Amino acid sequence: MTIKVHDKLLLTGAAGGLGKALRDRLKANCSVLRLSDVQAFGDALEGEEIILADLADAAAVDAMVKGVDAIVHLGGMSVEGPFGPILQANILGAYNLYEAARKHGVKRVVFASSNHVTGFYRQDQTITADHPARPDGLYGLSKAFGEDLSRFYFDRYGIETACVRIGSSFPEPRDRRMLATWLSFDDLHRLITACLTTPVLGHSIIFGMSDNAVTWWDNSRARHIGYVPQDSSDVFRDAIYARTTSPDLNDPVARYQGGGFVVAGPFGD
Amino acid sequence: MTIKVHDKLLLTGAAGGLGKALRDRLKANCSVLRLSDVQAFGDALEGEEIILADLADAAAVDAMVKGVDAIVHLGGMSVEGPFGPILQANILGAYNLYEAARKHGVKRVVFASSNHVTGFYRQDQTITADHPARPDGLYGLSKAFGEDLSRFYFDRYGIETACVRIGSSFPEPRDRRMLATWLSFDDLHRLITACLTTPVLGHSIIFGMSDNAVTWWDNSRARHIGYVPQDSSDVFRDAIYARTTSPDLNDPVARYQGGGFVVAGPFGD
Amino acid sequence: MTIKVHDKLLLTGAAGGLGKALRDRLKANCSVLRLSDVQAFGDALEGEEIILADLADAAAVDAMVKGVDAIVHLGGMSVEGPFGPILQANILGAYNLYEAARKHGVKRVVFASSNHVTGFYRQDQTITADHPARPDGLYGLSKAFGEDLSRFYFDRYGIETACVRIGSSFPEPRDRRMLATWLSFDDLHRLITACLTTPVLGHSIIFGMSDNAVTWWDNSRARHIGYVPQDSSDVFRDAIYARTTSPDLNDPVARYQGGGFVVAGPFGD
Amino acid sequence: MTIKVHDKLLLTGAAGGLGKALRDRLKANCSVLRLSDVQAFGDALEGEEIILADLADAAAVDAMVKGVDAIVHLGGMSVEGPFGPILQANILGAYNLYEAARKHGVKRVVFASSNHVTGFYRQDQTITADHPARPDGLYGLSKAFGEDLSRFYFDRYGIETACVRIGSSFPEPRDRRMLATWLSFDDLHRLITACLTTPVLGHSIIFGMSDNAVTWWDNSRARHIGYVPQDSSDVFRDAIYARTTSPDLNDPVARYQGGGFVVAGPFGD
Amino acid sequence: MTIKVHDKLLLTGAAGGLGKALRDRLKANCSVLRLSDVQAFGDALEGEEIILADLADAAAVDAMVKGVDAIVHLGGMSVEGPFGPILQANILGAYNLYEAARKHGVKRVVFASSNHVTGFYRQDQTITADHPARPDGLYGLSKAFGEDLSRFYFDRYGIETACVRIGSSFPEPRDRRMLATWLSFDDLHRLITACLTTPVLGHSIIFGMSDNAVTWWDNSRARHIGYVPQDSSDVFRDAIYARTTSPDLNDPVARYQGGGFVVAGPFGD
Amino acid sequence: MTIKVHDKLLLTGAAGGLGKALRDRLKANCSVLRLSDVQAFGDALEGEEIILADLADAAAVDAMVKGVDAIVHLGGMSVEGPFGPILQANILGAYNLYEAARKHGVKRVVFASSNHVTGFYRQDQTITADHPARPDGLYGLSKAFGEDLSRFYFDRYGIETACVRIGSSFPEPRDRRMLATWLSFDDLHRLITACLTTPVLGHSIIFGMSDNAVTWWDNSRARHIGYVPQDSSDVFRDAIYARTTSPDLNDPVARYQGGGFVVAGPFGD
Repeated sequence: MTIKVHDKLLLTGAAGGLGKALRDRLKANCSVLRLSDVQAFGDALEGEEIILADLADAAAVDAMVKGVDAIVHLGGMSVEGPFGPILQANILGAYNLYEAARKHGVKRVVFASSNHVTGFYRQDQTITADHPARPDGLYGLSKAFGEDLSRFYFDRYGIETACVRIGSSFPEPRDRRMLATWLSFDDLHRLITACLTTPVLGHSIIFGMSDNAVTWWDNSRARHIGYVPQDSSDVFRDAIYARTTSPDLNDPVARYQGGGFVVAGPFGD
Repeated sequence: MTIKVHDKLLLTGAAGGLGKALRDRLKANCSVLRLSDVQAFGDALEGEEIILADLADAAAVDAMVKGVDAIVHLGGMSVEGPFGPILQANILGAYNLYEAARKHGVKRVVFASSNHVTGFYRQDQTITADHPARPDGLYGLSKAFGEDLSRFYFDRYGIETACVRIGSSFPEPRDRRMLATWLSFDDLHRLITACLTTPVLGHSIIFGMSDNAVTWWDNSRARHIGYVPQDSSDVFRDAIYARTTSPDLNDPVARYQGGGFVVAGPFGD
Repeated sequence: MTIKVHDKLLLTGAAGGLGKALRDRLKANCSVLRLSDVQAFGDALEGEEIILADLADAAAVDAMVKGVDAIVHLGGMSVEGPFGPILQANILGAYNLYEAARKHGVKRVVFASSNHVTGFYRQDQTITADHPARPDGLYGLSKAFGEDLSRFYFDRYGIETACVRIGSSFPEPRDRRMLATWLSFDDLHRLITACLTTPVLGHSIIFGMSDNAVTWWDNSRARHIGYVPQDSSDVFRDAIYARTTSPDLNDPVARYQGGGFVVAGPFGD
Repeated sequence: MTIKVHDKLLLTGAAGGLGKALRDRLKANCSVLRLSDVQAFGDALEGEEIILADLADAAAVDAMVKGVDAIVHLGGMSVEGPFGPILQANILGAYNLYEAARKHGVKRVVFASSNHVTGFYRQDQTITADHPARPDGLYGLSKAFGEDLSRFYFDRYGIETACVRIGSSFPEPRDRRMLATWLSFDDLHRLITACLTTPVLGHSIIFGMSDNAVTWWDNSRARHIGYVPQDSSDVFRDAIYARTTSPDLNDPVARYQGGGFVVAGPFGD
Repeated sequence: MTIKVHDKLLLTGAAGGLGKALRDRLKANCSVLRLSDVQAFGDALEGEEIILADLADAAAVDAMVKGVDAIVHLGGMSVEGPFGPILQANILGAYNLYEAARKHGVKRVVFASSNHVTGFYRQDQTITADHPARPDGLYGLSKAFGEDLSRFYFDRYGIETACVRIGSSFPEPRDRRMLATWLSFDDLHRLITACLTTPVLGHSIIFGMSDNAVTWWDNSRARHIGYVPQDSSDVFRDAIYARTTSPDLNDPVARYQGGGFVVAGPFGD
Repeated sequence: MTIKVHDKLLLTGAAGGLGKALRDRLKANCSVLRLSDVQAFGDALEGEEIILADLADAAAVDAMVKGVDAIVHLGGMSVEGPFGPILQANILGAYNLYEAARKHGVKRVVFASSNHVTGFYRQDQTITADHPARPDGLYGLSKAFGEDLSRFYFDRYGIETACVRIGSSFPEPRDRRMLATWLSFDDLHRLITACLTTPVLGHSIIFGMSDNAVTWWDNSRARHIGYVPQDSSDVFRDAIYARTTSPDLNDPVARYQGGGFVVAGPFGD
């Protein structure tokens, strides 16, 4: 059963893939679920309210945050791309969000970070949250910025944040890399629930993955969150091997944890 | 099934809360269970013998220890209080116990240490047995002393000790903090049994907790003991959340692992 | 179900104890299982081929390796003994094997290393693959050499190797030490399968043990292999305790992880 | 003697305090020293050229970088302040700089990072470059971003960077805190020279401090740079103690490494 | 020049060997040096005052501490011996001292700990302050207790302490072991001065040794104290080798850092 | 002054480059210096004796070792080459040497290991003796074997060994890489003297380098040896830069610590 400790919860990026997956699930975590995205995505249902906001617009973000008890921040760019939009949505946007949280006394945030913060580690390495960031692109860089930003807001203002380095959250794993990185929607919800309800969260970094056999990430320093995954990529293993070929280890895409992101771009001019 | 490797086992502190919980359970670990406490607590049952002893009285402790094969040492003060009684029962008492063990050739001790040895770590930290002691009071200090004392008796005389840093061993967890610290009576017994029977114990520190989802303690360096908890605080989670309120993180009681102990006292004058 | 990613797989040491245990099981991992040993051991069955080779004979090893996709290398001396044969079979033999792999483009090897590479750690220590080698004899030394050799062939030529530090792989554990070291034949096969199929293996060291309660080895740095043991020595625990006596901790055999190996020899003159 | 390995060297932020201190000194490191700042600051002297550029202007930055062999990047905001200018000069500016370096094949950068990247560690802690960032403000955050950005450009494009976390680089230390953080101008130049000339720089983080007795920073992981400080704050110690009072350890300014930065701001509205 | 930051400084154990060595030297650190020991040791000189106190007597200790700004605590038993006096002087005595410090607002203590806190590490090991205590006797145990006690008074009450694990502080080193452990009187004074004057001390453990070539202790985590030794045992090396014989490594006295302490006792009955 | 603690000292490899450099210097360390090499290299001088031996010949090695108090083992192959001779001289040879030491009660050995044991670490990494071996060739592999072998003879038989990972010991550094790796002949002698005379050596690994500004190796775990280098490559720095060009970091020779060794070979057929 999902424990409900917040009255009004804000979910940003509600119109995106993960936002949709969480919209129903997060209702169990609160009395009112406030949904936000940059553009209109339909009407609020019962138990919901909708406030649209461009994350780069401080005033809009302020209005979006005002009145909520906690935030699940999925908003912003979620793929590699040119720096301009990433700067606006993910860097300025994260700053605006935390400034609003500070002003309105919001004390807990679940920040959707990404495995691309550490995408330049090799797939034969096991890393912990203490390994230095090795972002695999501009997107990963912006998420590393968000992690550091939230650390500052914790050290300075006591706002607790869980930086959830989401692996690959899809209905099912699509390729051999995702055998390691897959995070089921239900486990994603379990993880966010754990972050929202654990008595003391502090500023924590946790890798968002299901209970996969193959893994590169060690969450042993984040046990105080109490996340216990219940799904696993293993049941998809045979099928994925059957339809995919062995990786070429001379290809950075196969060698590094970030997969295709490590060769995306450069974008621009 | 409980493996029995000792003939005569001494349980100190037999009249206390945990002593009572272990009295029946430990009979499976030995042929004769010798029970001790500072004051009379009834008659010995079949398979038991009782020797009362004030731990600060070296001669009494010597008599208490003589003839046993191993010791489960729960005796002494088990809550925060003035230094005088703690000094007598827990510091001088521990010394007397190990001296007696040395003289009588007892080679294995399970020493009831406490999570209060490390009570000044924060609840968002995961610690191992290698983290330096940060006691949260005089009681925790006396347990840190016992750990160091037993280390000395191992390095010098080869007496093996498991320092079991007991979390919160009660019939069930009482508050949100105990979701992390809870140790069921059955798991306590499993843990003591593991300490008594593992082929090589050495001098080991192990956190005494059940298989709780939220935890602050990493026992990965104590796997040679072979403790596998089978209970969990998780089944009590919903009920505890329902009847308790969110912690105030400005309160040291909520922020530190030691809970209420970190603000108890000072005692005296 | 066993995933099959290789067409022709070489199993060396096929006539030995583990070789026999794996002969049937490994057929599921390949189309053709090439078996090798130093002396004739019968005829090839369907799906098998046999090429005999003395590992110290470079030309024979070259022929043995030519044409396979991957190697499971159990061959060589597997017990403590005089240095001469160990030098030939395990040191020169390992060199010959990797030279042949290099020449013929074999890119993945499962190398049967041994817990005797670290046999001089104590049984109350938990070690990881990063702990320096502390071999307990000439056999352990030769396996440490093989691990370093394979590291070189990875760093220089990109040949991936899993060094599997096999504990005690027998039908069942025989004594109290094996409660920690036991590796069931099925788990051995699971482990080798994981090494053969994980997308990126790199150069990895993994302790080969089942899911035993008592353990000295921490495989947390090798999770990318995806090995999940399913057997445990625990079901044999009561019977072993019943028929064996408590270890004498003054005896190095009881104190060190290598057991009897730590006092075997010296051999010669 | 200063070793000269570059022909044309770019110094950004040339009109600032450190820029002025380095302008003369860096001429020994190159044939031509290109100076840049956002606004005009006089004429180029012999051996110099000047190209003004707003770091937020990609085209201007491109022109500024084109044709140089290496970059010493001091440019941008160097104190705490509102996020807008920091975002432009330090975040977008750093991105523009590395993009220009990538396009023009510049392979080595000395990036002026700051102790404020880790300003929320306590003054009784010794930290290394592996400790996670704990920025003490928006300025420190922007420098943490620059460090991560340069890591990405190294992992992806092989551009080497030394992130020099400059302590307090002034003619002399001004207060007790600067006894730990002081970096003389000559040592700053020695450090930059070491970064420019060491055969292999990789991506390295090094704390910029003189050979002070009191220090919080451990550069032992950056010895490949070959920086050997020759000045020390110690000669100023008596005078500073004579004119300053003991710190109040209840004041975050005294407790944390970042000093006054840890309480600066918030800025805005 | 010695920096003077305290007005009235208390030196306990003033009549002992180190107390005598420090009596003159510490006058430079304060306006008034209060001296204490358990028994009369002559009259106060100019700039001194004397208050005798049995450390086990809380009231006497309270009077001894009242009115001072900082404490250098050398008092108590300083050699191995029976537990009774050690319990009184070093355990109860340390408690009384810190209680008095708490009551009277003394905020900084230099606590004379000992290398015997870690005497059971081998002489071929390099240890840091983070290595767990391995006391070599009852004396070492009492010093480990004092370190933990002072940690508690820092965590709870903000009293800063430097635990100085004094090696062998004599006019000159006497044997081969002391080549590693020697601490000249002048370096002892430099170290205490550093502890008294560094801006932020926190709770720190530092090994008290001169700049000896052979050493077992790594003070790199205590650099914030700013201790820079200026003496060395090396000048005595030839003479010591000439008059002593090679150690027998089968002898624990030669093998362990604690030297003769590791075999002293047991004391009693 | 060189301390003399051994009567008869064996120097193997006496006819090689380092052997010649040490022949005179080591006479100060002993009464009689026994010199050995595989082939005749002239007559013994006063205070010397010569016993020729092929290291692969156990009987010859036995005779070579008999009667000495300690061994400085430089003998064997000291460059990359085919495996056959390396196997004979460095692997079988090291075994023969330690077997002879065991039989004749020699208790201390200085083993000339090599930086090529860890040659596949990058030049921007700082490594300690605890970093796993990453040999850069067959020669480095044989030295890694020797290190493990000596560890075994210490754990099993108490023979102390210093594995000295010699960098580049030449009259002066020849190229930019040697600025980091250079070990002057005098410092080599100081290091060997330290190994021979430190009271407790244990089994230790120490990097053999002078006090160079640029370095990749951290000897902080080997301080018990008491080695204090007095030379530095820095005085050669300007001249080397003047006559050499910047390294191409795409070249493994420039990127890895092993330099040219990382691309030597393969040798054979």
